[in-house]
Amino acid sequence: MPLAIALVHFPVHNKIGQVVATSLTNLDIHDIARAARTFDVSPYFIVHSIPEMEEFAHEVIRHWTEGFGAEYNITRKEALELIEVVPDLGTAERTLKKLWGRDPKFAVTSARRFPFTTTYEALRRRIDEEDEPVCLLFGTGYGLVDEILAEADYVLEPVMGPTDWNHLSVRSAASIILDRLRGNREEKDEG
Amino acid sequence: MPLAIALVHFPVHNKIGQVVATSLTNLDIHDIARAARTFDVSPYFIVHSIPEMEEFAHEVIRHWTEGFGAEYNITRKEALELIEVVPDLGTAERTLKKLWGRDPKFAVTSARRFPFTTTYEALRRRIDEEDEPVCLLFGTGYGLVDEILAEADYVLEPVMGPTDWNHLSVRSAASIILDRLRGNREEKDEG
Repeated sequence: MPLAIALVHFPVHNKIGQVVATSLTNLDIHDIARAARTFDVSPYFIVHSIPEMEEFAHEVIRHWTEGFGAEYNITRKEALELIEVVPDLGTAERTLKKLWGRDPKFAVTSARRFPFTTTYEALRRRIDEEDEPVCLLFGTGYGLVDEILAEADYVLEPVMGPTDWNHLSVRSAASIILDRLRGNREEKDEG
Repeated sequence: MPLAIALVHFPVHNKIGQVVATSLTNLDIHDIARAARTFDVSPYFIVHSIPEMEEFAHEVIRHWTEGFGAEYNITRKEALELIEVVPDLGTAERTLKKLWGRDPKFAVTSARRFPFTTTYEALRRRIDEEDEPVCLLFGTGYGLVDEILAEADYVLEPVMGPTDWNHLSVRSAASIILDRLRGNREEKDEG
């Protein structure tokens, strides 16, 4: 039941709908790596097309996996080791094919609603019971471009609460979705 | 079914088990406020005992609810409006009692396992079906001190994946737990 995750910084939308490359943020690297490690998800691809941003990502990762951080905080090393920085989704796809020996299926998540969506339960079953190799894609900024959504194998439903307001951070959305797909389910009840 | 949340910066543990006050971080304010707004949770208490940190929190909140940020990003205003900065949990308790007309129950979350824990399902039922007024407590740093855990009405199970590694950020843990207590449940399946 392999599961990977990719955080896409290009191509994504900005606030007014243009296609842009967003900046990498330190906390996206850390928080999502820690969630990936918790939910046994690997690799965590950081997709970035700008060489300087790739270098920044490598610098953060090196600090925590080889540098001072590796001794200061061993759990952080265990999380950040899962990261692969790649220039585009094609490279992520080729990496997964090599790693898993099979073509990965891509599942996208979006705050928007679409007519054909897959439930978390259904995707969880496909991963667990049918052993499908899946890579989850998350967009930064104002979300993945339509071309990526259209080409994906699965479009997951938006994460919602009791209201129609769902402006979660990508860190929160990724954590929640990994929990929905991989979190511990409860068997016992309170005593 | 009222639900509130409190992010505690004092008293919490540091890495070596001492009782400390942690620093407030900008992204804890934003990410957890956005999750609170998504899952209809209010207020979001930021519990901080150091006056300078309270002032920092108010400055961030003012920027996004009254200042430039309020016009730049209306959804951020809607999220950060939920925040109340308080100097201790007693103040949060009195605020809730006034707001809800009833004594709140406190539910704590911890990465540690304890013998008597409440499942998310059970707490969800108490909130939804028995209309219990609950405030969730999250500790920053290395977690809430034992006195707070011991006095709480409910101790929730740790959020886990398929492994025993669970070093989630407090932002991820809070988002996941709010989703478990308040997230949309799936009725339809894939077509």
